Amino acid sequence: MSEVRIIPVRGLPEVPVGADVAALILQAARPQPDILPGDIVVITQKIVSKAEGRLVSLADVTPSAQAERLAIATEKDPRLVELILRESRAIVRQRGPVLITETRHGFVCANAGIDASNVGPEGLVSLLPEDPDASAAAIRARIAERTGAEVAVIISDTFGRAWREGHTNVAVGVAGMLPFADYVGQVDPHGYELRVSTLAIADELAGAAELVMGKLDQVPVAIVRGYAYPRGEGTARQIVRDPEKDLFR
Amino acid sequence: MSEVRIIPVRGLPEVPVGADVAALILQAARPQPDILPGDIVVITQKIVSKAEGRLVSLADVTPSAQAERLAIATEKDPRLVELILRESRAIVRQRGPVLITETRHGFVCANAGIDASNVGPEGLVSLLPEDPDASAAAIRARIAERTGAEVAVIISDTFGRAWREGHTNVAVGVAGMLPFADYVGQVDPHGYELRVSTLAIADELAGAAELVMGKLDQVPVAIVRGYAYPRGEGTARQIVRDPEKDLFR
Repeated sequence: MSEVRIIPVRGLPEVPVGADVAALILQAARPQPDILPGDIVVITQKIVSKAEGRLVSLADVTPSAQAERLAIATEKDPRLVELILRESRAIVRQRGPVLITETRHGFVCANAGIDASNVGPEGLVSLLPEDPDASAAAIRARIAERTGAEVAVIISDTFGRAWREGHTNVAVGVAGMLPFADYVGQVDPHGYELRVSTLAIADELAGAAELVMGKLDQVPVAIVRGYAYPRGEGTARQIVRDPEKDLFR
Repeated sequence: MSEVRIIPVRGLPEVPVGADVAALILQAARPQPDILPGDIVVITQKIVSKAEGRLVSLADVTPSAQAERLAIATEKDPRLVELILRESRAIVRQRGPVLITETRHGFVCANAGIDASNVGPEGLVSLLPEDPDASAAAIRARIAERTGAEVAVIISDTFGRAWREGHTNVAVGVAGMLPFADYVGQVDPHGYELRVSTLAIADELAGAAELVMGKLDQVPVAIVRGYAYPRGEGTARQIVRDPEKDLFR
């Protein structure tokens, strides 16, 4: 293993609906490190959602009776709760203001990944991309088209965890790589077969990228260089644990 | 934010009981990148446990009746189950071979963090350090003593997650830094106050370090350089969610 570099991509403009995210990234990356074959381009969900028009004005949302009830329990805007319910398959937990749901993609996270920060004027919220794996694949294809470089793309978001305080960045979309490094069946230097040895490297890469992003710094993209990721057609959906195997729901 | 580098530290020897881990790391790091003020030194739990003599031979363990029963349910060695129970405050979940416990430190993980890989001869297992925050602080103090460099130290281990497949590296010991980057109350470029904004950067750093470690590569240490971590006397114990706030136990 050699050194891995986490390189922030600065200077991206506000991303309008319909934007070619790949082109914006390439333009921003140009004076800096450029994008090379084998790079992993990690992109925060927010700008992908913006480009895909996944912004909703709360003023346009009419809450259902269920949303109204849940809004009282959670002390949230009923219109926001309505959006959370629409984006979710199931409510996983609710206590006080905490509302954990299973999104349509299968992610278990707070508020179905809906977020009001770094979006724009008050009252505007961003939903997760409809199919973040497809979004990642499309951006990856555009980068290959424009540069000839085969890269991996990860779309990241910031999720909480069951037993640990604080949030970390994880992968919600993956293209051009496998999300796991799999050591199952391999043998350590002492001849002992490794057991629990599937590492969710896509999540570790998303977390590493967060280190150069920061929440307020408007660095929505980072390039990870020097990591020999497992090639293949993986997705972030593979990381979602089948609810039947889930011991904590 | 500028570039962050994740630098593997190669060439560490097998770590004997009583080893000065800081000295071994400094020696291994010397021909390579050395250790500089502001670096974060991420160390896998395994070598710290070895140095602290936290290895147990299963041959020396006599299982209790409870361990014998649980060993049948989990199809594990009853002596291993006995050690898991001794290292745990509570069993959180058991289904088939999966045994999730709360360790004495408060970590929720499989098998109380006990592991047989990369330890040595068959029948030898490693326990987590007794107080990984204290271990991190001691190594940090030794590095400062020998080099004058103020660094942060993270001791990492590989844990599973409730809703996501695969494992990631997280921090089980922290010294010389705060484990969180806290954006609560800060305002985004649109004037919107950030809400869910406590990032568990110690876990993201541990995960980033894993990218250059690999399971079989015997790279038990990585240096993270270029990340302006929040200074302070933080611990990994702060990352442990209070069971009373835990919605998933």
